Amino acid sequence: MSEFSLIEKYFTRPAPTAVLGVGDDAALIAISPGINMAVSTDMLVAGTHFYPDADPFLLGRKTLAVNISDMAAMGAVPRWATLALSLPEENEAWLAKFSKGFFSMAESSGVELVGGDTTRGPLTLSVTIMGVVPLGQALRRDGARIGDEIWVSGKLGDAALALAHLQGKNRLEDADYQRVSSALHDPKPRVALGLALRSIAHSAIDVSDGLLADLGHILEQSRVGAEIHFDQLPVSECVQQFSAQAFGKRCVMAGGDDYELCFTAPVEMRARIQQISDELNLPLTIIGRIIRGNRGKVLAQDGTEIQLEKSGYDHFG
Amino acid sequence: MSEFSLIEKYFTRPAPTAVLGVGDDAALIAISPGINMAVSTDMLVAGTHFYPDADPFLLGRKTLAVNISDMAAMGAVPRWATLALSLPEENEAWLAKFSKGFFSMAESSGVELVGGDTTRGPLTLSVTIMGVVPLGQALRRDGARIGDEIWVSGKLGDAALALAHLQGKNRLEDADYQRVSSALHDPKPRVALGLALRSIAHSAIDVSDGLLADLGHILEQSRVGAEIHFDQLPVSECVQQFSAQAFGKRCVMAGGDDYELCFTAPVEMRARIQQISDELNLPLTIIGRIIRGNRGKVLAQDGTEIQLEKSGYDHFG
Repeated sequence: MSEFSLIEKYFTRPAPTAVLGVGDDAALIAISPGINMAVSTDMLVAGTHFYPDADPFLLGRKTLAVNISDMAAMGAVPRWATLALSLPEENEAWLAKFSKGFFSMAESSGVELVGGDTTRGPLTLSVTIMGVVPLGQALRRDGARIGDEIWVSGKLGDAALALAHLQGKNRLEDADYQRVSSALHDPKPRVALGLALRSIAHSAIDVSDGLLADLGHILEQSRVGAEIHFDQLPVSECVQQFSAQAFGKRCVMAGGDDYELCFTAPVEMRARIQQISDELNLPLTIIGRIIRGNRGKVLAQDGTEIQLEKSGYDHFG
Repeated sequence: MSEFSLIEKYFTRPAPTAVLGVGDDAALIAISPGINMAVSTDMLVAGTHFYPDADPFLLGRKTLAVNISDMAAMGAVPRWATLALSLPEENEAWLAKFSKGFFSMAESSGVELVGGDTTRGPLTLSVTIMGVVPLGQALRRDGARIGDEIWVSGKLGDAALALAHLQGKNRLEDADYQRVSSALHDPKPRVALGLALRSIAHSAIDVSDGLLADLGHILEQSRVGAEIHFDQLPVSECVQQFSAQAFGKRCVMAGGDDYELCFTAPVEMRARIQQISDELNLPLTIIGRIIRGNRGKVLAQDGTEIQLEKSGYDHFG
């Protein structure tokens, strides 16, 4: 049973005053007339989500960045965060670097740390982030409509390629590793994009678990299907080298850790979205469209369907 | 360096839009004209904060209860919570019981779970709780004034006595263990008391780390001293048996896990507070008073000062 199903089965109960409960990138709470608070929580465990010897400065940045990414996916302005961490020992040098990284991301994103807890235990980090979004303007997972174009920001697969290199699964030239490693270690949450997409996109999610898995959540919650064109997926030259191989396809479609936004919008918004892309100097690419049905398929250039491995993306393949 | 100093040193930065930042039972955020949101986060690690084989239903209740207690200490109404947990294996039976306990506490306290994350890793639980309190009415740690009487709710030391029994440090008769064990396993957060004390108490804190450690935070942040009368501390008959011994004194004054409220209020509020005690059917006891200075002392019945071990309560002894 996946993480998602466990949450759904045991931790989804009616939350009457929540506009949107567990199951989107963030919950929405009505805190003030006209304003919702978006709230999301994440736990990162050493050995599962990061290497115990990861650079503490970059880890501090990423710990907050992945949470800010959830705010971006809601079209919310990230405002406040709490941080709980357990540490195997009181390692002040580590804490100093970690907190420096955490605050460098906080300050550049306008986030204030308003609560903290440190304790002894296996290295584990938990952030709760809170943001604000005007009533009715949040980007949700359940708003995709048939005919919507599916977009993705930036490029996909660099982080997965960097991780495969570190795991010894696919060695890269040094120069290539340098090009893709920042996607893995220092992701840039797409907050400005999320804000710009309010009242433009019908649905959005951030790509943390891999494009197909995350787009699958949009399909499930919007009760629609999707058609993706593999050759339209935006990838770097490094990833391009591997994209004919099953390994390369996995990096692009199921790699995860991209922290780009995947969103759907009606065709008539295309010009407006291209304008946003120019303004933000951020590539935004149409990768397919929303169709009737309840599943997604990925098409090759010749129009045939690419057969996918099952695991990781329930609504594709 | 204690948990408190680590937080202070590395995670306290100016939070300009926060009314009150890291360092109280909860932070206060201005979310709406006239209303503050109180936010607090906690991490509980198996082996450090609870036994890995703890009853999952009671653990679920307590995980939320200790966070609700922080809201009580602020005079806030607890409203929303997020839960992140890592589990060594996908143990559905455990999750089913844990979530049942968590929701039993949530429902009886009017708290909605609005965000969750489950992941693989060492058994660790992290809750962030959010509540609301009218502007200017929160109970803080920094409001104690010279001449205030110091009060504590309920009884102190039962939880510590139960824990010492489980640790084999001080065996109890079965009947005695039964009497004190619910204080350890199923604490009752004093939300109604916190609300009743708005505009009555000058300062408040919940007793999670032990009376002297927690009252010490009030002394530090209010820049005052305190005089406590040991024989006035409210204890159960079980604890009373040991209170002549150093061990018994430790349970009462430094045991922790009591989750009672310790608060200070001016003498003229005494009758009003006794009325609250009657209304809530909850003992409220005067244990001493706030004096000039920056330290606390504990007095024996004959007026001599009781010498305390240093550790755990910087502002006493």
